[in-house]
Amino acid sequence: MRWWGWGEDQDAVSLPEPAERMLDLELGIEPPSGPKPVRGGPETVALPKPTLGSGARRELAAAVGAEHVVDDHASRVACAAGRSYPDLLALRSGRLAGAPDAVVRPGESSQVAAVLAVCAQAGVAVVPFGGGTSVVGGVEPVRGHHPALIALDLSRMDRVLDLDPVSLTARFEPGILGPELERRLATAGLTLGHYPQSFEYSTLGGWVATRSAGQASTGVGRMDDLVQSLRCETPAGPIETREVPASAAGPALKQLIMGSEGVLGVISAATLRVRPRPAAHHYEAWSVASFAQGVEALRTVEQAGAAPDVSRLSDEPETALTVALGSTGSRAEALGRTYLRLRGHDEGSLMMVGFEGEAGDVARRRGRAAEMLRSAGAVHLGERPGRAWQRTRFAAPYLRDELMDRGALVETLETATTWSNLATTYAAVRDALAQSLVALGTRPLVMCHVSHLYPTGACLYFTFIAQALEGRELHQWRAAKHAAGDAIAAAGATITHHHAVGRDHRPWMGEEVGAVGLEALRAVKARLDPTGIMNPEKLLPAP
Amino acid sequence: MRWWGWGEDQDAVSLPEPAERMLDLELGIEPPSGPKPVRGGPETVALPKPTLGSGARRELAAAVGAEHVVDDHASRVACAAGRSYPDLLALRSGRLAGAPDAVVRPGESSQVAAVLAVCAQAGVAVVPFGGGTSVVGGVEPVRGHHPALIALDLSRMDRVLDLDPVSLTARFEPGILGPELERRLATAGLTLGHYPQSFEYSTLGGWVATRSAGQASTGVGRMDDLVQSLRCETPAGPIETREVPASAAGPALKQLIMGSEGVLGVISAATLRVRPRPAAHHYEAWSVASFAQGVEALRTVEQAGAAPDVSRLSDEPETALTVALGSTGSRAEALGRTYLRLRGHDEGSLMMVGFEGEAGDVARRRGRAAEMLRSAGAVHLGERPGRAWQRTRFAAPYLRDELMDRGALVETLETATTWSNLATTYAAVRDALAQSLVALGTRPLVMCHVSHLYPTGACLYFTFIAQALEGRELHQWRAAKHAAGDAIAAAGATITHHHAVGRDHRPWMGEEVGAVGLEALRAVKARLDPTGIMNPEKLLPAP
Repeated sequence: MRWWGWGEDQDAVSLPEPAERMLDLELGIEPPSGPKPVRGGPETVALPKPTLGSGARRELAAAVGAEHVVDDHASRVACAAGRSYPDLLALRSGRLAGAPDAVVRPGESSQVAAVLAVCAQAGVAVVPFGGGTSVVGGVEPVRGHHPALIALDLSRMDRVLDLDPVSLTARFEPGILGPELERRLATAGLTLGHYPQSFEYSTLGGWVATRSAGQASTGVGRMDDLVQSLRCETPAGPIETREVPASAAGPALKQLIMGSEGVLGVISAATLRVRPRPAAHHYEAWSVASFAQGVEALRTVEQAGAAPDVSRLSDEPETALTVALGSTGSRAEALGRTYLRLRGHDEGSLMMVGFEGEAGDVARRRGRAAEMLRSAGAVHLGERPGRAWQRTRFAAPYLRDELMDRGALVETLETATTWSNLATTYAAVRDALAQSLVALGTRPLVMCHVSHLYPTGACLYFTFIAQALEGRELHQWRAAKHAAGDAIAAAGATITHHHAVGRDHRPWMGEEVGAVGLEALRAVKARLDPTGIMNPEKLLPAP
Repeated sequence: MRWWGWGEDQDAVSLPEPAERMLDLELGIEPPSGPKPVRGGPETVALPKPTLGSGARRELAAAVGAEHVVDDHASRVACAAGRSYPDLLALRSGRLAGAPDAVVRPGESSQVAAVLAVCAQAGVAVVPFGGGTSVVGGVEPVRGHHPALIALDLSRMDRVLDLDPVSLTARFEPGILGPELERRLATAGLTLGHYPQSFEYSTLGGWVATRSAGQASTGVGRMDDLVQSLRCETPAGPIETREVPASAAGPALKQLIMGSEGVLGVISAATLRVRPRPAAHHYEAWSVASFAQGVEALRTVEQAGAAPDVSRLSDEPETALTVALGSTGSRAEALGRTYLRLRGHDEGSLMMVGFEGEAGDVARRRGRAAEMLRSAGAVHLGERPGRAWQRTRFAAPYLRDELMDRGALVETLETATTWSNLATTYAAVRDALAQSLVALGTRPLVMCHVSHLYPTGACLYFTFIAQALEGRELHQWRAAKHAAGDAIAAAGATITHHHAVGRDHRPWMGEEVGAVGLEALRAVKARLDPTGIMNPEKLLPAP
């Protein structure tokens, strides 16, 4: 991954011409003043001097092997930030406030335990580091009251530990990346089916630690649903849950570790529910007259147990942008738009649905959903837009780099709420974002889509773009983020559906889980991590 | 509920004649010596004198109203025991080692909080009491180091707090009984669909506190899946989780409260996922050549996403007993048995499957499952045995009273494990039970069925019957229970799939969650219940 952004240079995407025009004309976004920055290597980034004591360093080397304790500039930069908008601002600025003093790369769970023992003894903070793709500050090198900090880089721990084709489970080490995990499963004809937007660069451990939800979570389940058991190394020792499909033996310990974001320990293995690789994939698009009508249609389909595995309903602004970006100016397209206008879908909403599985099953489910969507007034747009979505499903983070180069603030955030509270939450967050950005003198574009359906509600995923205020980018971002967070909390929705808490959502954790809920989590933290070395100042706000 | 057993007198069931014969001839079970005991009212039971101080009693009266703090004999007996085999032995003996000093009946959550405050201050232990149907000692009046103990009877808290037909959720107070909960939902055309065997006498609060699984959990989900949010009053204050379908905001607090069995606090409300009342019900039976073949068939159906909502596969001994009990000696039946013998199902296994839902959906799902079952060699037995099961689905606890009257030890226990570990676990537990009972000189009948299917595994539910050893009943029960528990733990299965831990499974909690896991749970307990008043000596073993 390029050190200052997303992906590798060869995969960079450039803005389509209509998007350029939109940035300029609709949003008045101007490129940054001055010449385009020349980007050197990571060695151009200024870092604080490493402060790890030589005694601790020796012991860490004894734990994992000297070659796996490194503090070269490139390794430190690679583990110094996640991929949030503030992270990218800092990386692009060439000045990082903090960085790990060393990057430590254990090769197995016993070495993780040994590293934690050394760090607890020496008072060294530990940031578990998988793919480093957190967009909420989850891997910021914040050392709290500790004199030093290491990044515990799990990239060497990427093995398959067990594959059980009878029970349809597979056990992995945490450092395995999405594509490699799927490749390994594919050799046995299996799949996990978990495709977050970060899929190419994120790891299993990170997915579990953040309760990730992939794009097909409606069909295959969230990460929380896909984990059968896990092991977590904590400073107090290992927690290992039983390899069983379900249990009534007390509170669910794995549910305490999932979502713990490294503040309790390091997930060192997880057994996942897997399934046969789908033989058939079918993606298609629909148009509905309005976002509200589309929400009703999705609710009906989901509650009837007929939901597609993937579904994504864009609100009117996101639909308009998608159509503009995809515009080829062809005659067929012009005809299509005339048709939709005649059906009252002039300012309509675009719905993308996807089905995967055994061919007959896909056909049957697709037919049932189509029937219900048609009854709800949706118009079939065919497979082309669906295939286009499938092709570009991981593209957004690449596009973000490009937009930032062009002078734009671009950010996403998500929440989830019940169906009956969806419209209220949608309007409140949309308006809060727009007003906060307008108040700072910019003309924003705020877009949203519904995805990740549940019988009782769904996820709302917002994207917002505005002229970045040069020199005040962080201030501007904070204003928008806080307005949205407050609106979400006031609406009774959750502060995060799948991005997790990290540092950025900590201010709302009190409202999310309540004062006593926080106390319960702090009690667990105090018992498992008595010296507070695990990922300081993440997830749980200070008492 | 009759104070010494299950249900009301008018609903008592008597043993069918073939069962009588089986007890006598096959198991050599003889009725107890001496005359049949004459059962008086609860006033005939000897109880310790109440020890609640007058100061605490006054404060409790101030919290809930004087008329809702009672210590009459009948109320104390009603809350002095659950419905485990040892509970029934104690009740039948007319001598109870312990009983609550008072029964306190709050009318709303603020009163629950007030009662906990009084008890924490006065050092009074609190046993939350719903339907009192625990079969694992979950409501035993054990006071630990506290001088007094109350039963917190939640029967007055049985209201519907909210009904959201758009999101398909319903919020209830914890004391509502199964039938009343379903009646209330039925008025809105809805159902929860949670039918544990204790359905008629158990409460929502108990279901949540024990992670209950109903007979249709394969279709509608376990209680853990059905709870969208909950509120729990703890001595440290309330925990209330957000009303959202899913969240990535840290560890799942509701998963810490579910299964907490009253040791952290009192569940005072829960919002549940509900669904439209099924229009169609279809129950039918199949025969497979062997238990092992039936397990494979169920695994195939479940992993293909085609599982019935209810399924129950009896092993050969349970099948033989079921057939014997249902035997009418008719010519049609004799012909049926000949047919099965010709198909190689002489010593076969009985499979009962049920589908509920919208009529077309039931027909479609039933057809798909039938096709797969036939391919797996199963023979259709028609709807009659299915309907019979449906009619008697709550009958087993009634039958237990009758069997105990006849001199039998009768007990059930359950576990869950992965499909690949199912046969090993089945054999180990079956043999451990049989051997432990044979070692004490009795001829046991050990039966099992598979139910509650998951993609990665299933539940094994054992029933065992033997001559009760007069005067040594508890010793005999403990020998069998410990043999089974050790076999379950050694097999890597869970000590309980849906009966919970209570007092009876505490010895295996260390193996279930590990030493560090126990520490994490103890830390939560210490923070939420610092004086240790909540349900002492349940769930968590002493450090």
